[in-house]
Amino acid sequence: MVLAGTPASRGMALGRARLVQPSRHAIDQRPLRPEEVPGELARLHQAIDIARQELRELRGKLHGALAREVNEFIDAHSLLLDDRELLQGLDELIQVGHYRADAALKKQRDRLVQVFEAMDDPYLRSRKEDVDQVIGRVLAALKRQTSPEERKLAARVGEILVADTIAPTDMAHLAGHGLLGVVASSSSAYSHSAILARSLDLPMVVGARDALSSIHDDDLILLDAEHGEVIVHPTAPDLARYRAWQREAQQQGRRLAALAHAPTRTRDGVHMHLFANAEMPADIAAARACGADGVGLYRTEFLFLRGKQLPSEEEQFVAYRDLVLGMGGLPVTIRTLDLGADKADAAGLALHGEDNPALGVRGVRLSLRHPAVFTTQIRAILRAACYGPVRVLVPMLTQPDELIAVRTLFKLARQELSRAHVDLPEKLPLGAMIEVPAAAINMRALLAHADFFAIGSNDLAQYVLAADRGNDALEGIYHPLQPALLRLIAHVIGLGRRAGKPVSLCGEIGGDVRLTALLVALGLTEFSMHPSQLLKVRERLAGLDRTALRACAPRLLRADTYEDVQALLDQLA
Amino acid sequence: MVLAGTPASRGMALGRARLVQPSRHAIDQRPLRPEEVPGELARLHQAIDIARQELRELRGKLHGALAREVNEFIDAHSLLLDDRELLQGLDELIQVGHYRADAALKKQRDRLVQVFEAMDDPYLRSRKEDVDQVIGRVLAALKRQTSPEERKLAARVGEILVADTIAPTDMAHLAGHGLLGVVASSSSAYSHSAILARSLDLPMVVGARDALSSIHDDDLILLDAEHGEVIVHPTAPDLARYRAWQREAQQQGRRLAALAHAPTRTRDGVHMHLFANAEMPADIAAARACGADGVGLYRTEFLFLRGKQLPSEEEQFVAYRDLVLGMGGLPVTIRTLDLGADKADAAGLALHGEDNPALGVRGVRLSLRHPAVFTTQIRAILRAACYGPVRVLVPMLTQPDELIAVRTLFKLARQELSRAHVDLPEKLPLGAMIEVPAAAINMRALLAHADFFAIGSNDLAQYVLAADRGNDALEGIYHPLQPALLRLIAHVIGLGRRAGKPVSLCGEIGGDVRLTALLVALGLTEFSMHPSQLLKVRERLAGLDRTALRACAPRLLRADTYEDVQALLDQLA
Repeated sequence: MVLAGTPASRGMALGRARLVQPSRHAIDQRPLRPEEVPGELARLHQAIDIARQELRELRGKLHGALAREVNEFIDAHSLLLDDRELLQGLDELIQVGHYRADAALKKQRDRLVQVFEAMDDPYLRSRKEDVDQVIGRVLAALKRQTSPEERKLAARVGEILVADTIAPTDMAHLAGHGLLGVVASSSSAYSHSAILARSLDLPMVVGARDALSSIHDDDLILLDAEHGEVIVHPTAPDLARYRAWQREAQQQGRRLAALAHAPTRTRDGVHMHLFANAEMPADIAAARACGADGVGLYRTEFLFLRGKQLPSEEEQFVAYRDLVLGMGGLPVTIRTLDLGADKADAAGLALHGEDNPALGVRGVRLSLRHPAVFTTQIRAILRAACYGPVRVLVPMLTQPDELIAVRTLFKLARQELSRAHVDLPEKLPLGAMIEVPAAAINMRALLAHADFFAIGSNDLAQYVLAADRGNDALEGIYHPLQPALLRLIAHVIGLGRRAGKPVSLCGEIGGDVRLTALLVALGLTEFSMHPSQLLKVRERLAGLDRTALRACAPRLLRADTYEDVQALLDQLA
Repeated sequence: MVLAGTPASRGMALGRARLVQPSRHAIDQRPLRPEEVPGELARLHQAIDIARQELRELRGKLHGALAREVNEFIDAHSLLLDDRELLQGLDELIQVGHYRADAALKKQRDRLVQVFEAMDDPYLRSRKEDVDQVIGRVLAALKRQTSPEERKLAARVGEILVADTIAPTDMAHLAGHGLLGVVASSSSAYSHSAILARSLDLPMVVGARDALSSIHDDDLILLDAEHGEVIVHPTAPDLARYRAWQREAQQQGRRLAALAHAPTRTRDGVHMHLFANAEMPADIAAARACGADGVGLYRTEFLFLRGKQLPSEEEQFVAYRDLVLGMGGLPVTIRTLDLGADKADAAGLALHGEDNPALGVRGVRLSLRHPAVFTTQIRAILRAACYGPVRVLVPMLTQPDELIAVRTLFKLARQELSRAHVDLPEKLPLGAMIEVPAAAINMRALLAHADFFAIGSNDLAQYVLAADRGNDALEGIYHPLQPALLRLIAHVIGLGRRAGKPVSLCGEIGGDVRLTALLVALGLTEFSMHPSQLLKVRERLAGLDRTALRACAPRLLRADTYEDVQALLDQLA
């Protein structure tokens, strides 16, 4: 039996199915006898401690550029577990109402969920899910105390998870425990989990509608994320196909390894630049191992989200300096703080609520509202830039005055550091991230003020299309081949080239080999991507004729729909 | 003493100051005696009923195009008052905890607010405010039972409200009770209250930082919303200036009245079209009274938000037919349902939560997900279109396939109605609302599929600038003169003209006489606006030389910043 879905990442996997249904615990509703109350309170708090500890452990296990994204979920959950109101309510239910711990948790959950639901506001659903997930975690820990055979969320080697959707936290955790792949009956290829699956190289198929009813626990399934198929009880020809894919994957691995220190050139000999998006030490090692030309995007948010306090200048300096040293003389592009209001609170940069945080005080807008915090980062960057070539990238720019303000802050920080006889770099190029449509359309106004440009294609797409890239319901609209997006990208690359200023692209499409030909056609010569994609893009570029592709650009840019662009690309291939 | 602020609407007002400080009620914390419990429960429920009644009355009093916007707030508050969990919690506090009604309200408020605050999520702040406002309303009603001299929020004739911010509900209510103007110490000129003030012709100054500390109750103040000033204890020259303004305003009123049935022409004799944005019967009367060329934007959301059930075909038909009849043969443009996920729940079109509803399943995206609901609206429009000229406008379009899908639904509905021998209009032009940047950039792809176009400049600006227009913190970014926005508007007008398809503009800038010259320069010939602005725009147009302005377009479109555009406009004036 074959279930059709949408490929969310690549690869294949053969393994046993492990179904995840919403957990249903039998709740013990008998009232406590008074003498049982202290023991029950202790049991509850032990379970809460276990849940806290699990979240902490999960956090410690995550690495790589996407750890930050997952860590946000963990932070939200940890905060809930420390919520005084929630904890007091639970204690009262046990002490006064003589509820058992599990019944008290259930009651608190229902209370909170009802409060949210009654308000009839869709925002609050996501909060409801958080409450559900956190209380579910405590309930599970409680259950394990009394019946220790109860296991945690399936995490056994050789299994393929089949679920409605999967939280990024769970995916990161399970991938570290030998999970082979994921089948999601809903979700989309642009969800956070899907992005994470691609970064983890974990095969994933989404939108396999009947998966939960058609697949049973321990069924043998072949997950084909290349074609978006799930084969239940694969036959001999299916298995032969899987083995052929395995052989091909191994060969590709060897082929790519050989490219690790090859130059990056198109078939017609044009030199291209491949940079790595990096964050954690592992990414930096990976970037060097595959011969990246440098770091094209170093995100600094993780420094601001990992503790209750803002990072000091010294902490930041050490992180940036180690990055620069780690790249051994290759250029490093540090993006200044790119937090939105939805995350600023966690970093202690309190802001009033925003209905649409993606359209709010984000990136440089937030940094310029906190000049002291921003200056601390600027000083740390200036000091680190003495250890190797550094460039600074400013996110979420709309208009020239923002870039001018940033340059002024750099100048003032330089003067201060210089008075204190601190070693300073001779020059420090300042770049503009192009992700707000107005910045792309009005790029000419930024030309005089920026030394280089980086297109943030993920956000640019979301704004141009007015479609949240995290919203699975917008799959038919949020698409990387949308003509309007491609025209803005071509416009930015063209203006940059004419002004003699480098333009790179560091969104997800930069590392997607299916789109490399398109980006070359649009004139891109600098790509920045997750290190895991770099060798594949280098291999792809070696097979492309840039001159021929550039000649196709006008046709590609004249297309009316993304389907038309796709058809033209298929023709080219 | 003069306080400087930002003009949020126009006009002047002279009156006594009425300060609104966050209300502080003394709470009676003595426990109830058991025999007092039933009486206290009755007192509480009576107060809740009064609060419900107040909200209902408020709703009945609102008219005009902005009633819908305000009604949303009222709906949210009404839902809270019906929340079972909230009401049960209050009863329990009184019955079990022997709290007095006011103390119970305070305790419930604190509980809910703490739940929200502990979650550390900025979204929830707005919910917190709702809880605060609703419980505040019940507390006030309770207070009035015991001390009837306690009055409601200041609503006396001849007063100017001085507050931190003002909720749109309060503003609408107070404006109906003789309020003369509003001074807000924070808020922005693009807030919902500011938009409402402009629509109500109520003078308002925002951002008058020290207003609450510098002004005292009953101080005589002169509010100058023309210049964004608040003069405390105005002197004789100030009062002379006020009288001069009054005389000028009266003259302008007479001048405008004379224009009511004049043709709309520029100084060089080019005919222009002025349409009205309308919703309520009063708007339609106003549109005819000022000689509008028709209705350029009829919003249909109010039909979907006023009850618990979706409106029937018959209800919609009657509303649309009456609109068509009301305009007596002038064309009427009906916009199909333009709800977002943030409001869809209220209309019974349940959707999962969205982090950024402005970037979510809105407008035609939502309608196409509910073809049965959409078809009911389509049938009602088709039937109404037999009573006069009707055009249909499709909101939130991104790409051609959406318009093709809408056209197909119209075709199917026609076939069905025709089989039932229902009278049908010969033709029904289908127009595209241009508010998604991709639709503007890729407008050429839509040309073949739309009969006319309407630029929704408010939303277009918010997406192009990635700046929520409801977010006061983005005042320096969300600006109607942003060059990127103007270029897209000029592009859309130009392509429409070359294809021989009408292009109108129905955002707020269409009714702003300060920007009429700019829009004429960009090529606009069809304006749609709130009826209150129409005569002013007609007067302004009569003073403009279109040929000269068109010649300035290239210079305006070359500007780098909105300040540059403003400077050029000042030069032109």
